[in-house]
Amino acid sequence: MITKPMAIESRSMEIIAPHLAGLNLSADETKIYSRIIHAAGDVDYAPIIQIHPSAIGAAKAAILAGGNIFTDVEMVRTGINKRALAKFGGEVFCKVADAEVREIAQREGITRSMAAMRSFGENLNGGIVAIGNAPTALFEVLRLVREENISPAVIIGVPVGFVGAADSKAELAAQEKIPYVTVSGTKGGSSIAVAAVNAILYILDNSRD
Amino acid sequence: MITKPMAIESRSMEIIAPHLAGLNLSADETKIYSRIIHAAGDVDYAPIIQIHPSAIGAAKAAILAGGNIFTDVEMVRTGINKRALAKFGGEVFCKVADAEVREIAQREGITRSMAAMRSFGENLNGGIVAIGNAPTALFEVLRLVREENISPAVIIGVPVGFVGAADSKAELAAQEKIPYVTVSGTKGGSSIAVAAVNAILYILDNSRD
Repeated sequence: MITKPMAIESRSMEIIAPHLAGLNLSADETKIYSRIIHAAGDVDYAPIIQIHPSAIGAAKAAILAGGNIFTDVEMVRTGINKRALAKFGGEVFCKVADAEVREIAQREGITRSMAAMRSFGENLNGGIVAIGNAPTALFEVLRLVREENISPAVIIGVPVGFVGAADSKAELAAQEKIPYVTVSGTKGGSSIAVAAVNAILYILDNSRD
Repeated sequence: MITKPMAIESRSMEIIAPHLAGLNLSADETKIYSRIIHAAGDVDYAPIIQIHPSAIGAAKAAILAGGNIFTDVEMVRTGINKRALAKFGGEVFCKVADAEVREIAQREGITRSMAAMRSFGENLNGGIVAIGNAPTALFEVLRLVREENISPAVIIGVPVGFVGAADSKAELAAQEKIPYVTVSGTKGGSSIAVAAVNAILYILDNSRD
């Protein structure tokens, strides 16, 4: 049994590496792919991850400028390395459990995570959106981008499941305004969103806690 | 786009159902399988989920008796429906971020989640262990069971990854003292542990929040 965290991680990355051969990834992309595959325990993620060519640069710039991260669910907020983010001045926000958001959702018959993204509004400008659970949250962010000129620096959109997730991610990858990280199909989830965000934070902040 | 949470969930369960055909599952098992598959967006979980025949009954009895849930990482604690659990008197505990646990881990050169499980000790008796991330945490719980007569009611053990995860879960499924829910191989994760726990809570507490 290997019990040293860094040894575990480095052995894991060695095991994942052959599954990335032939994908022609940059060093930064390799880190994001590896952390996602590690978080899912699933090498079948390798061919379905999609990273827009500007996404990593935009995410790094946003974090270095003190940009915030906006998540759809509390699990994503919990998993993000907030200490690493705070070094650059950013914070992680999630509104899904707010009483106000619950009211909006009930009144309008929409999901709470959708209402939560809507209520972020212009705060999303220049920040990082990280959606790990709700397709409706991603659809809503894409609507804000399209109809209300909201402009996050990057959208990490990996909602999961069989109802709307694949469509929401296809729409994310089809739009051309905002760089993105996504995964095609039904797979995804909070752990995947967290893995992508933390990979970028670790690229910027080599000192691990 | 479907935006009503209950409609989304019910449509998702319909899509998953055919993938469970032939597995000869009870109604309760079907709920756990379905929520896991939904949480991963991955029907390939169907053949790798393993539920000990006594596990669901033991988990229900533990919750009804006010038993607590002990998790390896904060993401699992965050995702568990604590309001549903609280109706029966239980709470969710996670020690991985405690200063004391960090010290033990550094001193002994073990992972923090391993040190965290060790420091729960006899508090685990009669409770539910839910491990979503760290193989070392599951190995440690199994050692506590084997060597220190610690006796949780059930172990939901779905650590993820390529270093130790599959072995730790095989060891869980091979022991005969404690009923378990697990997933064979490298897959798993916090979302999977949460899905299994919440499925059991929803079986007991049909009123959803």
